Amino acid sequence: MTRSFHKMHGLGNDFAVFDARETPLAMTPALAAALADRHTGIGCDQLIVVEPSTIADVRMRIWNADGSEVEACGNATRCVAALVGRECSIETAGGLLSAAPGGDGASVDMGAPRFGWEEIPLAYAMDTTALPVGWEMLEGATAINVGNPHLVFFVPDLDDVPLERLGPQIETDPLFPNRINVNVAQVIDRGRVRARTWERGAGLTRACGTGACATAVAAIRAGLADNEVTVELPGGPLVIEWRSGGNIRMTGPATLAYTGEIDLEAFR
Amino acid sequence: MTRSFHKMHGLGNDFAVFDARETPLAMTPALAAALADRHTGIGCDQLIVVEPSTIADVRMRIWNADGSEVEACGNATRCVAALVGRECSIETAGGLLSAAPGGDGASVDMGAPRFGWEEIPLAYAMDTTALPVGWEMLEGATAINVGNPHLVFFVPDLDDVPLERLGPQIETDPLFPNRINVNVAQVIDRGRVRARTWERGAGLTRACGTGACATAVAAIRAGLADNEVTVELPGGPLVIEWRSGGNIRMTGPATLAYTGEIDLEAFR
Repeated sequence: MTRSFHKMHGLGNDFAVFDARETPLAMTPALAAALADRHTGIGCDQLIVVEPSTIADVRMRIWNADGSEVEACGNATRCVAALVGRECSIETAGGLLSAAPGGDGASVDMGAPRFGWEEIPLAYAMDTTALPVGWEMLEGATAINVGNPHLVFFVPDLDDVPLERLGPQIETDPLFPNRINVNVAQVIDRGRVRARTWERGAGLTRACGTGACATAVAAIRAGLADNEVTVELPGGPLVIEWRSGGNIRMTGPATLAYTGEIDLEAFR
Repeated sequence: MTRSFHKMHGLGNDFAVFDARETPLAMTPALAAALADRHTGIGCDQLIVVEPSTIADVRMRIWNADGSEVEACGNATRCVAALVGRECSIETAGGLLSAAPGGDGASVDMGAPRFGWEEIPLAYAMDTTALPVGWEMLEGATAINVGNPHLVFFVPDLDDVPLERLGPQIETDPLFPNRINVNVAQVIDRGRVRARTWERGAGLTRACGTGACATAVAAIRAGLADNEVTVELPGGPLVIEWRSGGNIRMTGPATLAYTGEIDLEAFR
């Protein structure tokens, strides 16, 4: 029996989205990894399964290309909102989100950022606004949880940072018991920040939505930017709004590339 | 209007195959490149369009991920044979092929190899059995046209060759007016050769079918192997049969990953 799927992307961060609201789908890490293979499977940064929820309109589960399940993905949330086609609440392992389709994409309430060391989580208590550790040229990171854990490093020039080399070192540092996503950011002015992200389990991606949220919140909280920030990622811009104590709102595109039919049994 | 396509692969060398036998499809280099993008398009090593032919059962046209059109692709030929579903003749820009589905794939008569310098083509006359030029550790190449142009270098240990660095240098050398595919090969015994290919316009791929043909023919012609050779590529094995003066027969898998529906107008 074949299953249908939607191949979607938010700024080039791409997903195979399976709608399992009516017919259950038994996803496993091995199946997710096989489907994410870009030569022999569908190929995607993350695999998304939309399920029924008892506490929200839908539940969204997310697997990385390496088969690991992750809590949150901002770009995927916009794609799910576009797929659902109306304002909806979305249950994720990282918390409850609300989203609405609009324009060529969607706007998502990403919830409130969390700053406590045990909420990131870190391995032991420390000041999350400027971690007293460093990796080569990267130091003074801010740690923020926006549904999933992020570090943000502000640097004078984004293009000087060898993130493909430093990302995997930082991601797997024992300081981060759940591993961590790594962002480097360059403030252009009070409304614009350039950023790149090393995604935990996925590597360098073109546009990490939660990374853009974490970067904007870090910039706003440090007084480097105003409350509405355009975060310019390699794949394109996302608009992030945040006020201290409030929820993060992220707005950006969600694009359907094509629809497919696949025999999942051939990949198990 | 959407078009349907088959996402297929031969040993991980993957293709988006459009059947335009009944409804014409206007492919362009820009559209091929947009569809081949692995994040925003379908994602594939090569894009295949199957068209009607006046001289064969079908005509196969092949575009690389960079939008350039190429003459021949052995793995794609097996996939087209599997798609057609019966023994068939296939017109390509590299010549007329005949193929038959079988087992978990297909067997393809790839035609006779050509060895003349002007048939490769090279920029000027030289002995194609051992080109008097070299690139670092690679020297003494054999040049063969098996529908598309190939160089084969035999080396003591495949894993010592930095093909990702040397491939692009050799591909674009002025000696090759149509550019060239670059194979490095290690003879294991008279029936087994390990090989890796730098594909013109596509880079390192897991399993180049014409590269396996060129490698086997070079080994057989040099007396290093018998008339039936298993060429072990990173993606898996292909069986190549050849006798001097005769045609090359290539046998290997052709796998359907999934079928899709796509709005091509969104990619033009």
